[in-house]
Amino acid sequence: MNNLIDETIAKIQPLDANAMDAARARQDQLTKPHGALGRLETLSIQLAGITAQARPRFTQPAIITMAGDHGIARQGVSAYPAEVTPQMVFNFLSGGAAINVLARHVGARVVIVDMGVASELPAHPDLVNAKIALGTRDFSREPAMTHDEAIRAVEAGIEIATREITPSTHAQDGADILGTGDMGIGNTTPSAAITATITRRTVKEVTGRGTGVDDAGLARKIAMIERALDLHKPDANDALDILCKVGGFEIAGLAGVMIGAAARRVPVVIDGFISGAAALIACGLAPTVQPYLIAAHRSVEIGHRAILEHLRVEPLLDLDLRLGEGTGAALGISLCLAAAKILDEMATFADAGVSEKS
Amino acid sequence: MNNLIDETIAKIQPLDANAMDAARARQDQLTKPHGALGRLETLSIQLAGITAQARPRFTQPAIITMAGDHGIARQGVSAYPAEVTPQMVFNFLSGGAAINVLARHVGARVVIVDMGVASELPAHPDLVNAKIALGTRDFSREPAMTHDEAIRAVEAGIEIATREITPSTHAQDGADILGTGDMGIGNTTPSAAITATITRRTVKEVTGRGTGVDDAGLARKIAMIERALDLHKPDANDALDILCKVGGFEIAGLAGVMIGAAARRVPVVIDGFISGAAALIACGLAPTVQPYLIAAHRSVEIGHRAILEHLRVEPLLDLDLRLGEGTGAALGISLCLAAAKILDEMATFADAGVSEKS
Repeated sequence: MNNLIDETIAKIQPLDANAMDAARARQDQLTKPHGALGRLETLSIQLAGITAQARPRFTQPAIITMAGDHGIARQGVSAYPAEVTPQMVFNFLSGGAAINVLARHVGARVVIVDMGVASELPAHPDLVNAKIALGTRDFSREPAMTHDEAIRAVEAGIEIATREITPSTHAQDGADILGTGDMGIGNTTPSAAITATITRRTVKEVTGRGTGVDDAGLARKIAMIERALDLHKPDANDALDILCKVGGFEIAGLAGVMIGAAARRVPVVIDGFISGAAALIACGLAPTVQPYLIAAHRSVEIGHRAILEHLRVEPLLDLDLRLGEGTGAALGISLCLAAAKILDEMATFADAGVSEKS
Repeated sequence: MNNLIDETIAKIQPLDANAMDAARARQDQLTKPHGALGRLETLSIQLAGITAQARPRFTQPAIITMAGDHGIARQGVSAYPAEVTPQMVFNFLSGGAAINVLARHVGARVVIVDMGVASELPAHPDLVNAKIALGTRDFSREPAMTHDEAIRAVEAGIEIATREITPSTHAQDGADILGTGDMGIGNTTPSAAITATITRRTVKEVTGRGTGVDDAGLARKIAMIERALDLHKPDANDALDILCKVGGFEIAGLAGVMIGAAARRVPVVIDGFISGAAALIACGLAPTVQPYLIAAHRSVEIGHRAILEHLRVEPLLDLDLRLGEGTGAALGISLCLAAAKILDEMATFADAGVSEKS
């Protein structure tokens, strides 16, 4: 194990019970029947525990969208050609992608990170270059990355989360709530391999159509993942081993983001299937990350259900999304802000002179 | 039937098929796999059909929250005393209620309407006075309202929707998307009576705990509604008859809002159980209203499921809410704005130079 990863994990504390008690007590004094705002109330209490603040306020949401390419994509596991990964990075940078629209809608900034796109991208002021390699290797033949690459990718995620959270090192105020997002043609394949390994489900149970392969493509994808898991035999209890053998650079980076955010008591709203696979890796490295995670939505991609069950998190939304990029996370962030504002801004029965339950 | 109601219903047109086709075609050109934004895509197409615009833009959301009292509340069907209705109206006017917090969060204004609170409320610049009477009559003994009162309440809703939508008659720009909300101690009881009648379910199947009555209170509430339906025998095919016998002034007003909005091609995001009962009345008066309705969420209140099934609408959210006031509608409006922005603001494959599916 590595110093930065270990050091960061060692800083992760349990949720703050005092702040949660205070939030719970305040919810019961607000001018509404007890529990009438359901998930918004429980979410506000979780946010209090995460931030260790009885009335957390969020003003600087940021979505970290990480891009990477996958050697396995050469095996025809995606409906789209691999050149779409860099094309979509440019689309993110020019503000025309779904994540840009939804992030603007919810008032979040988007941080685009090249974790391992398979082409050299021109420098751009809004692009964070954390490229580990020009895509992973084809894991149907060899491990996706070296042990050193896996560590460097997780470390990069920790560093990026820390930089985004810290006000002094960044042009803008530090982010106080993070969302995760991904872009990488072929990346539902490593995500399914990770999910099957960690949740101990069959490959078939956790492998879907991604961006839209047909029946034959899906059968080929399942068979390829089964053969790869047979070849590499990743250790279900060793998240770094899984990353090396069947992972992806953006997945490793997102796991690092989650670890880095948890160490700084910043909530992380996780997007769909690929972010979920990263969450499995993050919680594999450090189970203490789990309470810092908020599942934005339930993806159409079938493996996502297995992830949510394994992580014991209940998604906020179920809108048949399967895009990634952080699109579900953006909508989830808006609900987190709503929950925190309810806790902070509503009048109490005493404030408003409203009679309580008889 | 009445002139204003009939005239307004006569103006309601089917959704605009050309706008929907254009929206559908554009969705398929946007830089994402076909259908990858799920409900946001279908919602954007519905919004195009409602507004008859291929790329609808919404900048002026408004939530109309109507308050009324209920004679039936004297029978102990609520966990809260009836004085809470006017107290909560004041809380709305001073900005401390949940609906104020969530409306601010999503950028909507709130229009508070007194449809029939059981006390004289002092004039307030932000309170619309449309009081039909000082609460309905106790429908365990007599009809809740007269035929004339029912008509006037629906008309008031039509007039208020029209005024809010029309720019020239209001200080602000006209609302381009509406949400509905309610306040009225005891109002899950008329809502359950309406729901049982129109959806032809048993009272037990559609009656829940409201703001939180205990087991004995729930049994009493069910028995009372059963006796009232037995006494009045409302005609399931006559929405005005149902309103008169077991309705409420805020429910009638909200039905009018839905009819008025549909006639002006303005989408209506309906909140939970009480708004749902109003939607049953609105669609009973004019089935053509249905495609203009967007169900914000699935309430904890069990009768809401029967309403959603009867109306054949799929809710956007399922967050265990049971507050009313328009709180779910506020969150639903935010998703409608997100859906419309996706359709309007995203780059196409051609715009962004992104390769299409192979």
